[in-house]
Amino acid sequence: MSNVNIKPLADRVLVEPAAAEEKTASGIIIPDTAKEKPQRGQVVAVGNGKKDEPLTVQVGDQVLYGKYSGTEITISGKDYLIMRESDIYAIL
Amino acid sequence: MSNVNIKPLADRVLVEPAAAEEKTASGIIIPDTAKEKPQRGQVVAVGNGKKDEPLTVQVGDQVLYGKYSGTEITISGKDYLIMRESDIYAIL
Amino acid sequence: MSNVNIKPLADRVLVEPAAAEEKTASGIIIPDTAKEKPQRGQVVAVGNGKKDEPLTVQVGDQVLYGKYSGTEITISGKDYLIMRESDIYAIL
Amino acid sequence: MSNVNIKPLADRVLVEPAAAEEKTASGIIIPDTAKEKPQRGQVVAVGNGKKDEPLTVQVGDQVLYGKYSGTEITISGKDYLIMRESDIYAIL
Amino acid sequence: MSNVNIKPLADRVLVEPAAAEEKTASGIIIPDTAKEKPQRGQVVAVGNGKKDEPLTVQVGDQVLYGKYSGTEITISGKDYLIMRESDIYAIL
Amino acid sequence: MSNVNIKPLADRVLVEPAAAEEKTASGIIIPDTAKEKPQRGQVVAVGNGKKDEPLTVQVGDQVLYGKYSGTEITISGKDYLIMRESDIYAIL
Amino acid sequence: MSNVNIKPLADRVLVEPAAAEEKTASGIIIPDTAKEKPQRGQVVAVGNGKKDEPLTVQVGDQVLYGKYSGTEITISGKDYLIMRESDIYAIL
Repeated sequence: MSNVNIKPLADRVLVEPAAAEEKTASGIIIPDTAKEKPQRGQVVAVGNGKKDEPLTVQVGDQVLYGKYSGTEITISGKDYLIMRESDIYAIL
Repeated sequence: MSNVNIKPLADRVLVEPAAAEEKTASGIIIPDTAKEKPQRGQVVAVGNGKKDEPLTVQVGDQVLYGKYSGTEITISGKDYLIMRESDIYAIL
Repeated sequence: MSNVNIKPLADRVLVEPAAAEEKTASGIIIPDTAKEKPQRGQVVAVGNGKKDEPLTVQVGDQVLYGKYSGTEITISGKDYLIMRESDIYAIL
Repeated sequence: MSNVNIKPLADRVLVEPAAAEEKTASGIIIPDTAKEKPQRGQVVAVGNGKKDEPLTVQVGDQVLYGKYSGTEITISGKDYLIMRESDIYAIL
Repeated sequence: MSNVNIKPLADRVLVEPAAAEEKTASGIIIPDTAKEKPQRGQVVAVGNGKKDEPLTVQVGDQVLYGKYSGTEITISGKDYLIMRESDIYAIL
Repeated sequence: MSNVNIKPLADRVLVEPAAAEEKTASGIIIPDTAKEKPQRGQVVAVGNGKKDEPLTVQVGDQVLYGKYSGTEITISGKDYLIMRESDIYAIL
Repeated sequence: MSNVNIKPLADRVLVEPAAAEEKTASGIIIPDTAKEKPQRGQVVAVGNGKKDEPLTVQVGDQVLYGKYSGTEITISGKDYLIMRESDIYAIL
């Protein structure tokens, strides 16, 4: 997992996307169908959540999120995504 | 019922869709009309709900949901749907 | 009234639509005009309501609802509609 | 005023529209302009209101409402409108 | 000020529009520009407000409101507008 | 600052726009770019705010607001704008 | 960091955008892809937040925000952006 010096605001989360051909130990792959495909990545930084709503995901979690979720940024030459926790479907 | 290692977030639910030709013991079938048809499946994982709103459906429940509900994912070669509990119409 | 083994979620209600030519004892008929016509049916199953908002309709109630309300399902060969209580206009 | 056996749900109200040429004792008529014209009628049945918000109109009230408000139904051969109380502008 | 027998519902207000050429004592006129022009009138009846939100305007207030605000009605041969208090910009 | 006899409702504010070529003591000018340009003016009357939310701006404040904010009115021959406080970006 | 005499309202923040070719010490650069690119800048003034929601960012913070966020203003010849805190993705 990457070590980045960035603090997402509120309910935002910084995610390092998994390489496209990668496959998890539990064997999750993304089906090739007409429906929108979820993407997989690892949480590398999290915000403090909204008032009275702390975040559920933690740094290090493997997560699934929507294909068009988040905004791309590059830190020290690596690509990341900044997204809201509500864009994350599940923790693997 | 499948055994999967995935934790849906908040009010999300992981559903294993029933095979198209399948029919429940109570004889539920999906009518072939112009209206949107509900789909049937089994809940295999549930989130912790939203603040002050725990989920109603439980792992193992047979549920009806909208035809276009949820996002497809494949785990260990089986297809599932991640959806919000509000996309589920009823428990059979 | 039919006896069905299905539990609608939250504020959803399962309704058995009245036959098109049917007429209630109180003589309610549906006018043939250009406006959207309400439909009549009988409630056969109800959800537990939303948090702090129990449902008003009960199993057995004759209800009026919008023509395009709900989603069709067939149980044991009979057609039903799953709808939200807010789609129901009145109890007859 | 008609006597009808119907219970509107929540914040809905059953209104018997006044005949088009009718005129109230206080002399209210509907102007013939390009703007949407309000309609006049009498409340014949009311719902129980929403949680913590009882209805203001009562059975017997003469009310003004928008031209396209409500859904038509016919009971015992008479035409009525089912609408939400928020569709009613004023009590005459 | 006219004396009318009508009770607006909730946050609605009955306004008697000023004649187009009229001018207030404080000299307010409406500029002839491309922007939407506010209109001036006098409040002749007010509703009881919404739950926990009594109305601010009172019968007799001279008010400014948007050009396309409200619904026209005619009472005893005079034209009025029914509008929500939120359609009123200011008290003169 | 002008002295006007008008009371904006709720969260509305009456603003006297600065002349187009004017420049503040702190040297604020409006850039000539493709983006929407904020405008500068002085608050001459304020409403009482919304329930539990008093206004922040006060009579006499120099403020920045969006180019298309508010509604024009003319009082005693001078042009003003009526806008909501949320249309104001900052106090200078 | 610039010293400006301006007080943003509520949840608004004044940001001094970084020069386009600038690069932070931690090596963050903005990728050249089809997705919307975040921008980097420094907070130079902050509002008091909304009721019960003080702001998180502080004067001096380096922040990332969306490319089309905010409204441009020029103070003493320098360009700034006024935006809502919710337009800010993260603190660097």
